[in-house]
Parts: sequence; C-alpha cells; structure tokens
Amino acid sequence: MTVRPSTNRLSAQELRDIDAYWRAANYLTIGQIYLLDNPLLRKPLRLEHVKPRLLGHWGTSPGLSFIYAHLNRAIRQRDANVIYVCGPGHGGPAMVANTYLEGAYSETNPDIALDEAGMKRLFRQFSFPGGIPSHAAPDVPGSIHEGGELGYALSHAYGAAFDNPDLVVACVVGDGEAETGPLATSWHSNKFLNPAHDGAVLPFLHLNGYKIANPTILARIPEEELRALFIGYGYEPLFVEGDDPAMMHERMAVVLDDALDRIKAIQDTARSGAKTAQPRPKWPMIVLRSPKGWTGPKEVDGLKTEGFWRAHQVPLSGLAENPAHLKMLEEWMRSYRPEELFDAAGAPVSTIRATAPQGAMRMSANPHANGGLLRRSLELPGLHEHAVPVERPGSVKAEATRVMGSFLRDVMALNRGARNFRIVGPDETASNRLQDVFEVTERAWMEKILPEDVHLAREGRVLEILSEHTCQGWLEGYLLTGRHGFFSCYEAFTHIVDSMFNQHAKWLDACRKLAWRRPIASLNYLLSSHVWQQEHNGFSHQDPGFIDVALNKKADVVRVYLPADANSLLCVTDHVLRTWNRINVIVAGKANSWQWLSIDEAKVHCNAGIGIWQWASTDGGAEPDVVMACAGDVPTLETLAAAQILKRHIPKLKIRLVNVVDLMTLQPKEHHPHGLSDREFDALFTRDKPVIFAYHGYPWTIHRLTYRRTNHDNIHVRGYNEEGTTTTPFDMTVLNGLDRYHLVLGVLDRIPEPAGAHVQLRQAMEGKLIEHGAYIREHGRDIPEILDWKWEQ
Amino acid sequence: MTVRPSTNRLSAQELRDIDAYWRAANYLTIGQIYLLDNPLLRKPLRLEHVKPRLLGHWGTSPGLSFIYAHLNRAIRQRDANVIYVCGPGHGGPAMVANTYLEGAYSETNPDIALDEAGMKRLFRQFSFPGGIPSHAAPDVPGSIHEGGELGYALSHAYGAAFDNPDLVVACVVGDGEAETGPLATSWHSNKFLNPAHDGAVLPFLHLNGYKIANPTILARIPEEELRALFIGYGYEPLFVEGDDPAMMHERMAVVLDDALDRIKAIQDTARSGAKTAQPRPKWPMIVLRSPKGWTGPKEVDGLKTEGFWRAHQVPLSGLAENPAHLKMLEEWMRSYRPEELFDAAGAPVSTIRATAPQGAMRMSANPHANGGLLRRSLELPGLHEHAVPVERPGSVKAEATRVMGSFLRDVMALNRGARNFRIVGPDETASNRLQDVFEVTERAWMEKILPEDVHLAREGRVLEILSEHTCQGWLEGYLLTGRHGFFSCYEAFTHIVDSMFNQHAKWLDACRKLAWRRPIASLNYLLSSHVWQQEHNGFSHQDPGFIDVALNKKADVVRVYLPADANSLLCVTDHVLRTWNRINVIVAGKANSWQWLSIDEAKVHCNAGIGIWQWASTDGGAEPDVVMACAGDVPTLETLAAAQILKRHIPKLKIRLVNVVDLMTLQPKEHHPHGLSDREFDALFTRDKPVIFAYHGYPWTIHRLTYRRTNHDNIHVRGYNEEGTTTTPFDMTVLNGLDRYHLVLGVLDRIPEPAGAHVQLRQAMEGKLIEHGAYIREHGRDIPEILDWKWEQ
Repeated sequence: MTVRPSTNRLSAQELRDIDAYWRAANYLTIGQIYLLDNPLLRKPLRLEHVKPRLLGHWGTSPGLSFIYAHLNRAIRQRDANVIYVCGPGHGGPAMVANTYLEGAYSETNPDIALDEAGMKRLFRQFSFPGGIPSHAAPDVPGSIHEGGELGYALSHAYGAAFDNPDLVVACVVGDGEAETGPLATSWHSNKFLNPAHDGAVLPFLHLNGYKIANPTILARIPEEELRALFIGYGYEPLFVEGDDPAMMHERMAVVLDDALDRIKAIQDTARSGAKTAQPRPKWPMIVLRSPKGWTGPKEVDGLKTEGFWRAHQVPLSGLAENPAHLKMLEEWMRSYRPEELFDAAGAPVSTIRATAPQGAMRMSANPHANGGLLRRSLELPGLHEHAVPVERPGSVKAEATRVMGSFLRDVMALNRGARNFRIVGPDETASNRLQDVFEVTERAWMEKILPEDVHLAREGRVLEILSEHTCQGWLEGYLLTGRHGFFSCYEAFTHIVDSMFNQHAKWLDACRKLAWRRPIASLNYLLSSHVWQQEHNGFSHQDPGFIDVALNKKADVVRVYLPADANSLLCVTDHVLRTWNRINVIVAGKANSWQWLSIDEAKVHCNAGIGIWQWASTDGGAEPDVVMACAGDVPTLETLAAAQILKRHIPKLKIRLVNVVDLMTLQPKEHHPHGLSDREFDALFTRDKPVIFAYHGYPWTIHRLTYRRTNHDNIHVRGYNEEGTTTTPFDMTVLNGLDRYHLVLGVLDRIPEPAGAHVQLRQAMEGKLIEHGAYIREHGRDIPEILDWKWEQ
Repeated sequence: MTVRPSTNRLSAQELRDIDAYWRAANYLTIGQIYLLDNPLLRKPLRLEHVKPRLLGHWGTSPGLSFIYAHLNRAIRQRDANVIYVCGPGHGGPAMVANTYLEGAYSETNPDIALDEAGMKRLFRQFSFPGGIPSHAAPDVPGSIHEGGELGYALSHAYGAAFDNPDLVVACVVGDGEAETGPLATSWHSNKFLNPAHDGAVLPFLHLNGYKIANPTILARIPEEELRALFIGYGYEPLFVEGDDPAMMHERMAVVLDDALDRIKAIQDTARSGAKTAQPRPKWPMIVLRSPKGWTGPKEVDGLKTEGFWRAHQVPLSGLAENPAHLKMLEEWMRSYRPEELFDAAGAPVSTIRATAPQGAMRMSANPHANGGLLRRSLELPGLHEHAVPVERPGSVKAEATRVMGSFLRDVMALNRGARNFRIVGPDETASNRLQDVFEVTERAWMEKILPEDVHLAREGRVLEILSEHTCQGWLEGYLLTGRHGFFSCYEAFTHIVDSMFNQHAKWLDACRKLAWRRPIASLNYLLSSHVWQQEHNGFSHQDPGFIDVALNKKADVVRVYLPADANSLLCVTDHVLRTWNRINVIVAGKANSWQWLSIDEAKVHCNAGIGIWQWASTDGGAEPDVVMACAGDVPTLETLAAAQILKRHIPKLKIRLVNVVDLMTLQPKEHHPHGLSDREFDALFTRDKPVIFAYHGYPWTIHRLTYRRTNHDNIHVRGYNEEGTTTTPFDMTVLNGLDRYHLVLGVLDRIPEPAGAHVQLRQAMEGKLIEHGAYIREHGRDIPEILDWKWEQ
C-alpha cells in the first residue's frame, strides 16, 4: 500500500460531525425505502407507517454517503470544486438523502422542505407511483449520471473533466459496474486527460463485494492482482478497507487528503510548464472496501445480511406478516439516533449542515452538474465560405464529409478560446474524411509521442479511442457539463452504443420536465462510411439500423437527417450545432460524388426538411404521374439517374422528384414536431399516385413513418434488404434493388402502360442489369457507363 | 519477464521450414490484396495483373501468419488440439492464406485448388465483387470468429473452451480491439474457466502498435504497466518482441512451448484432483510485439510504412499512376522468393506442407471450428411434467419464468453427461426466477468461495458475469463449437448486445450459403424483467426495442416469441432448444400471473403461433364486430379483462380474441417462412372490422409487420409509448393506454354505437381511470379491483 501511515487527521469534533452527517444520510436513505409516515420516528413505528410496496436498494447506499460526507469535508477545507458521479445506479436514495441534507433538494423541490412534513414527502415519493425513480436520475440535483444501466460512470466523469481545469470529478465505480466492458476500458481514459488544461477525475472503486446474487470479481481476486490491475491501468491505487466506522473515517480522511494532494501536485507540475519524464501522470484512485449494506442488519432470519448480497435491495421485508421484522426495522433506524440528527422542526441540526459546503460549492448545486447553466453558444463560421460552388445540379463533385470537416475545422478554431468544442470518434476522424480539423488541432495523446507520429499532441482536442462506448460516454459527460461536440462513427458500429443512446435519450426526455435543469447542447452523430460505401469491409460493416433504434425514442428528443450532398450536409451541421436537448443523427457519405444544390438552395431545402426538386421533375408543377422520392446520398443519386432515363425514354411521363433531408417530416404532425400535416404530405406525395421511394436504410422504416398517410398503400420503398458483401457502391444498390435500373422498372410496374409501349425500356433495363453483373464479376469495377454517368437536364 | 532464457529450440531445418511457410503465407496474403493474374510472378509484373480496386489490410497479416506457423509446429509436435480465433478482423487474407496452404481451403472450395489456376482464383476472389470479404468470415475454414466488428475474440474463445477439456483455443487479440470495452472485460473470463473440465485459452496480445491512424494504447504504455495489467487480469504474461525474423522465430518457439507446458501443468494438477492454494490458476498469455506490416515496404514515398499505421491497409497504391509503386510491389512480393515456396504446378512445396499438421489436426479443419459437425441434440424433459395444471382459463396463477426454470433444470440434468448445455446471464438467473436450475448445478466461480456463499462452485454450469457482452460472446463461442445454451437478460439491457446480435445474425445468414458449415444450435434469449414489470427500477429499465433490432435481420434467421402464460412459455422453450441456425428471442415475465392454457392447448396454440381464443371470444365462430388482438403476457391480461368488461356491458357485441405467440406470423408469407398467407390473416383479422391490438412493445412494430395486410387501416395498436417510471405494472399500462379501461374505450371508439348506448360504459371507464389514478397516488398500490381481478367466463 502506498498511502502514508494513518494519523489522526480528523479532530474528535470533526469525526463526530462527519459521522453524524453520515448517520443522517443513512437514516434518510432507509426512510425513503421504508416509510410513508412517522419520518422522524417520534412515535413507535407501526405497520401503517410503512410503504405497501418496499422498493429500493440499501446495499450500496451507505458507502456512497460515506464518500459524500468525506468529499464535503475536503471541499470545505480546500475550497475545492467537485462534482460527484454516482456509478452504482441503485444508489438513488443515498444521493437524494445527501442532496436533501445539503438543502439543494428543497431548492429544486420547494414542497420538500427541510422539516418534518418535507421529510415525509421526501420518503413517500421515492419509488412511489408519480414519485421519483431509484437511481440518480435527472431529478437529483448534482447528478449528471443516472446509472440505471451500468458501465458509463467513468467515461462520463472524464467527459466532465475535459477542459474544466479547476474541476475534480469524484466518480464512484461499483464493483458490479466494474465488470461491464464499457467500464473496464474506460479506466484508460487517463491516456487522454491533460493535467495542464483538463480537470481531474478521482475514481473510487467501491468494493462492497456483491452484485444482486453473486460476489464481484474485483472484490474476490487476490489483493496483489487488484493492485497490479490498477497500476496496469496507469493509476496509483490507494486503499481504504474495513468496517469500523470510526477507523474508516480516519482512514478515508487521510487517503482522500493524500489523493487530492497528489492531484494538486500533478496539476501544479503540469501547469508550471515543467517537463516530466513520463508525459502522463499516475493519477491517484481510491479503493474503498466496505461491507455491502454497511451499518444495516447483520443477520435477518438467521442469514448473513450486512456484508453479503442479501443486503442488495431491501434487507427486511414482509413486515406485514412478520412483526419481528418491523421491530428490527425500527431498531435499525433508531440506531442512527435520529433525535440527535434532526431538530424539533425536523431539519438537520446545524452541526450537520455545517459539515456540508455552502451555495454553489455543494456538489448538489455545482453548476457543472447542471451544465446548461454554463453552456455558451458556439461561434459558427459562415456557410458560404465552406460551400461547394454548384452552378447547376450535377456539375461538380465533392466529398461531403470532407467539406463538413473544413466547417468543423473552423468551428474548432473559432471556439479555441472558449475551449468548449470537442470531436470524438473511434479512430475514424480521418477515415470519415474530417481530417481538415487537424489543420487547427491534433488528436489528444498523453503517452509517448514518436518522431514519426502524425497529428498527436498533449493539447489535442480530437479524442480518439477504439471504443465507441468510451467516445459516447466522454461526449455525454462533456455535453452534460455545458459544452458542445460531435461524434463521428462508422454507421454500422453505432449500434455498439444503442443502449447508451437510449439512456441519454431517456435522460433528455426526463429533463424536459424539470425547469431547473437548463438545456444542454445536443448530442450530434455523424454516421459515415455507411452501408452503401463499404468497399473495404463488406457485410459485417453494412447496417443502417441505428436510425430505427433512434426512432423508438421520444419524438421531441430525436432528429434524423439524410443530406444528399455536401451543401445540404453543411446546412444540417450548422443547424444541429445550434440546437439543444436533442440527439441529432446525421448520415452522410464520404465518397466523391455529384453535388446538387447551391448553398442557398440547400438552406431553403434543409430548412423545410423535405421538398420537390423541380429541376429534376417533369411534372411542370402540376399533378404528376409518379412520385420518385429519395432520402440519403446514394438513393438520391440513383433516383436522379433513374429519372433521367425515364425522361429520355418516356418524355411525356410526369415525374415529381421529392428529396427528404429530415426523416421526421414523414411522420404525422401529431407524432413529431417536424411532421408534415396530412395536407402538406398529400401535396407532395399526392393522394393516389404511385410513389417509388429510394431510402438509405431498411425499407420498412419508411412504412413505419408513413402508414397513416392517405397515399400509403401506393408507397413502394426500396432500401437495404440485408443483402451485402464487399463490392462497389453501385453493385450494392443492385443487390438491394435500389439502383437506377431497378427504380426505372419499379416505375414502369406502377404506371399505366399504353399497350406494349414500355417493353423496350423494360428490356433495356434488364439488359443493363445483366451487363453490369457480367462486367463487374469480370473486371471487379463498375462499367464505364456508371462511372461516367452525369446528370443532364 | 518470466519466460525461460531463449535457447535454440528450433533446429536449423525447422527454422528454415517455418520461415518458408511464413513467407508463403505472406506472399499469398499480398497476392490476394493485389493480383488478378500472374499469381506466381512467373512473368514480370505488369499493371494488367493488378486489381483495379486495391482493397484489404496488410498491417496485421504477417503477425497473424507468424502465430499460425508456430502453432502448427506445436500442434504437430504435441499432437495438440487447437483452434485459432483471429481477433484482428482485417486479417482475413492471412487466414485465407494459411488455410489454403493447409489444403483445407481447397477442400471446401474445390475450384480453388493447390495449383497456379487455383491460386489465381484465390487472389481474384478476395474483396472482389461476388468474391469473399476481407475478414475471417464463415467462408474461411477453421474460423468461428469473423471479427469485422471488434471486441469479441476473447469471449468467443472462452466460449469455445468451456466443456472442451482437450481443446486449446489460441486467440489473437489485436491492440486495436484491446481498446474496446467488451474485450477489456473479457480478460476476466479466466475467473470462470475450470482446468479440470474446460479446455484452455491461450491469448496472444498482438501489439503491432497502430490502429487505422493512431497508435494503440497498450503498445505505448510503459512496459511495466503492460505487465502489471495482465498480472492484474490474472495471467502470466510472456513476451515475444522484435522484428528480426530469425530471432523472432526462435523466441516464439521457446515462449509458445513454455506457454503450452504451463497449460499442461495447470490441467494435470487440476485433473489429478490435487488441491491448490489459489483455486484459479494463472494461465499464460503471450504478448507479441512486432511491426505493423512486418516484412512489407519500409518506406513509401519517403514516409515510414513498416512499423507504422500507414501499413494498415494497402501500403502501395496508385499503381496505375505510379510505375515506381508497381516496381516496389514486384520487389516486395519477390522478396519472399516465391520460386522456393511453390512447385512447378503452383502448389506449396512439400517441406512447407509438412510444417502444417494433417487432416483434422489442422486448425483449418478442426471440427470444433465447424461445430455443427459435433452438435448432438439435447435430451429434453417431457412438457407435461413441468406444465401448470390449468383446468380452465384464469383459474390458477403461476410465475412463467419460474416454470421455465424447472424445465431448464431438467434440461441441465438430462444433459449432464454430455456437458453440452450452459445458461449465461448478467447476474440475473435468479432475478429472472430461473433459480430452480440451482437444484442441479451452481454458478461457475474459480475465485475463493466463502462459507456464506450460495450456489457457487468450481463445477457450476451457469455462467454469470455483469457483462452482457461477455455473456453473449461466451454463448456464441459455445454454440459455434457445437453446443447449446440459453441467455437470460433484462429486456431493456439486451440492447447492450444489439451489435453482437447483428453480427451473429449475419454470420448465420452467411453460413446458410456454405453447405460444408453444419448447422449449429440456435442462440436463445429469454428477455425477462420486461418493460411492464420494472417496479424496482423505472424508466431506465423500460425498453422493448430489442425486438425491433432483431426484426431488421434476415427473416429466416430470426424468431420472436411472446408467450402469454407459463405453459406457452414451456412449449416455446422446448421448441427453440430443438432448432438450429437461428436466433430465438423469447419475451416473458416473471410475475405471478393468471394462466390461460393447459399444456395441450398451449402446444396447439404455440405450434400455430397465432390463433383465436374461442373461450374468450363472443363471436360464436362467426364474423365478429371487433377483433381484440394481443401479444405478450401483460397485454393479454389487459385484453382479457377488457373483453370481460365488454361482454358484461354489451353482451351482443361479437368480439374475437386473437392471441399472437410468434410475432413472425404477422408478416406476409413471402417475407418470412412463418408468415400467414393473406387469406389466413384475413380469416383471423377480418377484411374490414376494427382490430384493437394490445402489443408488448413499441406499437409501430405491429404496423411495420402488417402494413401490407388487407385490413391494415383498421388495426389500432396499443403498446409502449416510452411513458415510464417506477410504478406498478398496471399503472404502467395506464400510462401507455394499454390497460383494460383504455382498451374498452378503444373498442367503443371504433364500433357503431346505437345512439348514446355506450355513454354509460364510457363514463364508467373514464371513472375507473380517475379512480385508479387517485388511489395509486394515495396508496402506492393498485386498487383492490385490479389486484383481485379474475377471469370469469
């Protein structure tokens, strides 16, 4: 063990006060789990004071409050700026208890005052219908991490620490959560944290030994392996182990001071500009080994409870059937001596309140944990300076994401001073062609940098780790503390963070009901290297289903954009960076492709989200014979090519070409704020004409969005049918029936045909498909007709 | 370093042979990436011999072949039974090269023979339209791991090793993949592997230093941290580091022998029954640090390439524009001296072929890697012995998953001898009420076991780790090597493995096209603790969207079952355990609930997958006025309760009650093999009557499945609308409009109403909703009317 020998760091009074605070927090935790009434136990406890449904988790709570109490002392003594990330999801009642003791809970919930009536309401609402959930959900002041789904505490903590040089993020990692993959790799976040300009993360690995019904791995491995593991992760592990409260208070005080001293020393060195042999410091972390359900019933019905998994949820249950349990509950609660902890009115006594910091120094009131308070809008560059000049549609080619990269470069440069914009990604920033950002910043890297390395720097603002989970967690933590960012990812592998997306969407949804939670910047995804452009990879990299996961979440939180060209992508990028409390999913390819809209046209089009491309239509603005709709860059290209073939061969056919940028426009207005009214929808898609809809993803997604529309029965969608392999983008469209030739055939199938009039065109299309198949299998590349195709009005 | 000092383990001849084999593998790798023709370079290399699209990944390949070559020597010398899990996804061409050298590739692909013409085809097909992808996909003999998406190599390897005592699973983990969360935690799989009855996993951490465009973390951290990390993970790390081939061959031979000796010693000790101080052995693992793109071009255009990320994909490109590159490519390929490696016909020379093992000892032909060859059907218990006796619908209550648990207990017991059945889950086997399995086995646990521990044993067959990724990876590895299993998981958190599900579904889909890949047992999920039963947790635990992810994959691979009661769940469980090459998703609750069907009725109903519950209908078998459809246990309960109310109040109303077990029946027959024909569908759902469909998940899922059906416009779906919190299951249905009262109102809205006839019933329903809301917010539990509800005919 590397800590200094334990000394009496706490005075006797401090020890008493900190213990009283801890007892109060524990008492309030148990009260929330159990009591409907008689909150201060001023009467003997009777069954009618107890909740009919006993829900909640005691096991992890005393450890969480223990850490909270000690952090409070340190904050006061050092004037430290600390927030608390509570990994153990089920520690909700403990976090609520602490924030109530600090007064912040009453500030955000005035009906839950610091008195007996307030305490009764506090207890009652917990895990009660219409009340609050059992995690550190958005309703808990000071929380940026709900933790219902485990794995992301540490990446959230690091995300909060980036570019917050004065902040210490205390992060409690439960030993259950520590077994998850995302958590296991997020310890490596220290390779990206720069002590000169970032804050610090102080992880507490809380070993209370058990999950729901099992021991935990890290609590049972030999201690030398545990120590080696964290040394291996690059930390200096400090240990606090035991179960005697007084000794543990002493020990924690010593170790916590040691850890904070080490953090300060690391930061002082880095900020002095001194060179260090090893660029990345060995940050401290604390291992707290304490019993599960610490200070709770030692045994229940003859079975070990404290220090075992039986303490995980509600240690004493069946109170109605078992009066002895009711008695034990009362004794247990009275063991904290509530009469010493709360005054006549029911408020925490002044010595307890004095152990907590005041005002915004309280972890429950730290503005970093309500990041919207600190959010400053980004400075954004002008769109015209980045726009691709497009004199007429299809006259010039560009790589859409590269153009976006030049825009993001300027975003990075313009906000350099504010240090509030980051790009994250799993080693794909350049692969997704956003490499222009490296003209103004580098990739963050705190390990050794070799002479041959390219775009690595300790000051870099692009964060790349081959862990989508860590990228997402960092970005969420960064946004939740009031900053801005972008996540670029291979489309197929965004599924890796499906569940994180879900949880963040739920967090944002819950925040909308809490006026005191100020809006945070939206989480913006660029999904590139998409399903249609996987020449290097093939089937395993072909999956456009993330959109479907996104669409399951609350409409007002989610947006999905499919810009068809570079200028549209620019407009969408500019837009999403101005939004808040949303998750914006942008899908855009990186291939060098024809461009359709000037920047001014793109602005109008993207603003509407959907529209007729009159220049590509042949309906002269009147009712068309057929609507050709498209969403996504590759489907748009194929639709235009099909429309051109049809124009040439059936000049009288009235085609209307509709391009969709904002997928949400397709939904009914009552389902999504961007949804078109039925009248608007019908005006675009007609009430009865065939619609051939070429869509980027799984075709049924369009049906799901449009099934209530008047003309739904006539909408025929082509999309990705899970037919994939390593081949050219054009061949991919052929495999899935989304190519120009199949689209033409699709139109021919659905328009009235003067006897035999279209036989020749049909045969020609079928011939093209055969020719393509033969050519590509022979030559391994597309036939020149495809490669050389041009839009001609 | 803990390895023995390097000695000359290899004779000069062995060294020459192994190096020749390695050169041949490297040559064949480059050939696949570059050549269309002139495979043996018997003519000077010209541009027309080179592929028009250069795709593939050289960087990781030489290291993979180096390991392969050395494993081959060890297999021959020790008669070892080894399979090779190739984590670096892009090592596809290397794996193909090795399996071709061993002859196995030609055995599964007879047109790709061991001669010049075969080699030409081998080269041409790689990353070529209609050819093979760039990973170790199912078409590569000996592969059980494609690796396109990174993170699962090691959990697959452990899954393969469980219950295969004679097998050594060599598993190469790339240093890119090592950064992913799933991989980072899967090192802890050693806590679950029992040397007495499981095989061994020998991990090779391949540090070649770089990802696509970045250094890797593990290759750059100080060596003492790297060593500590693996000691911390519980391994004995052995190092092979360098770039000089001859020295590296020597070193790898020594270290590999050392590792295999250690494995044998561990197994011998365990199998002798000797007690060891520490129950879990310190298994060896090998760190191979070698240059990225080893033996490739050192510099290209003046930029470092070998040993840098520029070697990741195609080191030399733009050959058409740059004749110097073409020249470099030829020199590079000739540096392997192909004329020494292949005979006149183009086959590998005999000394090379002799370095590989023969027959089924070849890693490319090991039957464990084509697990269907070894798969034995499970012995299954009779359904009647586990069935809940149900004399009439709604006469008895049961916990569905607990009944399933008793069935699984007997599956476990009946197949004890075969050791081919495992249950995996993230600490939720008991929480999901499958605890009866612990009557016949325990949870596997190789760490210390304390006196108070419950159901932990070194011999346990239930695998629990708080990592859904690891559970899924283990089970996939177990199934891919010919065994059977079940994964039980909280419904919401199945999203954590969305992307793993996707990749496994793609694997199965690809296998269907390869006759030599024998069918493997299906991957079976039980999603329990589902969206409607989250009293302890609330919003973060409420997400039925995994079904939607599943439905995006190829129809023939995926099945989704929503049994409404215990006997239906039994029938479905029995069925899925008999199936192969599928992914079966079962959603079932654990609450004590009314039962509807006897086991014989359940068999008929589940076999059809959908059907009319005549006993609950009032249409007398004739055309109904309204169809009330339901899928899922809670929606079925609410639908029956609604039907009962309607019957009582509008006795003349002809209601048809349809219950759906197999969601796939709703799809058109041409979309899914289980899909009903339109005639069958119309016979159930009518062509024009209102359908009130109460569904377990997101309502649009039903629309997506039925949008082409005749009566689709009349289908009104109630389901989960993302309205959640910590409350009772019944209150959850109210929040989402799926409760009995809303369902009655839904019916009333859609049936013709004799003037004012239903006003009273409407008001009664609205009154019930108000009464419920007031009661639950006051009392925290459902009103007795709900709790005491009973089905009455």
